[in-house]
Amino acid sequence: MATDTGDTVITIANPDFAKAVLSSFNRQNAMQLIQASMPVIEHGLTEIHVPHWDGIEQQHGFIHGGVVGMIADSAAGYAAMTVVPADASVLSVEYKLNFMAPANGEKLIARGQVIRPGKTLIVTKAEVFSVVDGQEKVCALMQQTIMVMHGRVEK
Amino acid sequence: MATDTGDTVITIANPDFAKAVLSSFNRQNAMQLIQASMPVIEHGLTEIHVPHWDGIEQQHGFIHGGVVGMIADSAAGYAAMTVVPADASVLSVEYKLNFMAPANGEKLIARGQVIRPGKTLIVTKAEVFSVVDGQEKVCALMQQTIMVMHGRVEK
Amino acid sequence: MATDTGDTVITIANPDFAKAVLSSFNRQNAMQLIQASMPVIEHGLTEIHVPHWDGIEQQHGFIHGGVVGMIADSAAGYAAMTVVPADASVLSVEYKLNFMAPANGEKLIARGQVIRPGKTLIVTKAEVFSVVDGQEKVCALMQQTIMVMHGRVEK
Amino acid sequence: MATDTGDTVITIANPDFAKAVLSSFNRQNAMQLIQASMPVIEHGLTEIHVPHWDGIEQQHGFIHGGVVGMIADSAAGYAAMTVVPADASVLSVEYKLNFMAPANGEKLIARGQVIRPGKTLIVTKAEVFSVVDGQEKVCALMQQTIMVMHGRVEK
Repeated sequence: MATDTGDTVITIANPDFAKAVLSSFNRQNAMQLIQASMPVIEHGLTEIHVPHWDGIEQQHGFIHGGVVGMIADSAAGYAAMTVVPADASVLSVEYKLNFMAPANGEKLIARGQVIRPGKTLIVTKAEVFSVVDGQEKVCALMQQTIMVMHGRVEK
Repeated sequence: MATDTGDTVITIANPDFAKAVLSSFNRQNAMQLIQASMPVIEHGLTEIHVPHWDGIEQQHGFIHGGVVGMIADSAAGYAAMTVVPADASVLSVEYKLNFMAPANGEKLIARGQVIRPGKTLIVTKAEVFSVVDGQEKVCALMQQTIMVMHGRVEK
Repeated sequence: MATDTGDTVITIANPDFAKAVLSSFNRQNAMQLIQASMPVIEHGLTEIHVPHWDGIEQQHGFIHGGVVGMIADSAAGYAAMTVVPADASVLSVEYKLNFMAPANGEKLIARGQVIRPGKTLIVTKAEVFSVVDGQEKVCALMQQTIMVMHGRVEK
Repeated sequence: MATDTGDTVITIANPDFAKAVLSSFNRQNAMQLIQASMPVIEHGLTEIHVPHWDGIEQQHGFIHGGVVGMIADSAAGYAAMTVVPADASVLSVEYKLNFMAPANGEKLIARGQVIRPGKTLIVTKAEVFSVVDGQEKVCALMQQTIMVMHGRVEK
């Protein structure tokens, strides 16, 4: 089994990637603090969802840009984690994020995706959508670099 | 009165900038959610502080990278707000952030600074420090673009 | 006539966009210096091609990363120019570029694309491909912010 | 001997760093193509200078943004090379650059600097200045990630 990202076919390095990712995600208090969940974990792709609630708003009643960045960074980082061996962990080296529209609507969906897997570095992207009346509207776009740490399994 | 950022002297466009910034910051629920405060507001510079508490941790007991990004983006955005006229507001267009060390220690300090003021766009930076045994250690570096929206005062 | 970029349909603001873009490109000495050409100009998309010749190499015989960045930035900037009114010009505000593979092969193709058009700011991306034995291989990925300057036609 | 970058003291890993950097720079045809030179090589810092000549201009007679990016990326990458062991080489992973003013004047100076050295990754920055009537004016700011490849000396 493998994933095709256009010009790259990524073989599955850890058959239990979904379990490993979800277990890590569930131990992130900060994700619980903002009421985030991770309903989608596929090979090379994850989704983080956050309902729009008042605790995560900024001064205009939109969801805070910091929360947008937080779930974009995490969704893409976990997408990278789905493609590394079971005895490796991943680290977010850096990312760049463009805000493209206010994060209003009922909820946010951050969709993280592996663009270019590598042994040491993985390039990923995330798109964040606000769901308004059931329709997804892009509100942010992120490009990220992930480092793979071999032999350092996440406990 | 003015601020010197090396090759640029920024004149003060809004004498009440500190009041305007603090009032905006205090209406951001998301900043309260993570227990952030803004003890420093100078012309061209702000600081956001966050104590290390378990609700904002990731799976290894460090402060979540998303929180680091959140306060870096906000501190630099508010630094930009200190240099715009009273009838203008600011918008975070995009930023790029490098994580340089784990966010451990007693608290985080995000120091946002105006690098290049402009009529429509302002370039800023933020450094995030973790305070370990009273000593500041850099843990992240951010470069950001802010858009000024003239005639749109923040209510 | 219009272009569909997923969730956004971009109407054509300047029917003569191809002529305007090509005329601007042809006046860029730096593009001639590196032997770049622009064989593709569509609404929301341009391509810059550069043959692999020794004058643009780095120390290992690959095409210099600076040339990769140069054509990525330009292709995406010109993609933005295709969607603005005839009396507007565009300015590259900032970009972020990931190098993903060495730029070897017979030639480089930078494909610039509008991701999110806006009245004042346009978000674009570019992918740079090296053509090796006739096959395109991604070697860089860029995300960019463009500013639209209305009423400032490029002469 | 060592360099102090604020909170980090970087020890000298390769006493012959200046020779190694200059030798590499001199083998980059693309740098000769744009008439770039490297008159400053210090521990953790390099400078690339480019005279303003018509071959590197864009359509308005300023120096092309692509050339600005090219020398920013290279100056910071070579700054990183000054701090790695003799048997290691460096690779530009990614960078983000803000254009802040047109690149006019007599010449450009790109000043690259190590911000955070690490065993595998080095964070750097570069500022590009245009020299107008002998005065330096900032025209671009870059933040970059460099990968160190140990055991792969540059020939």
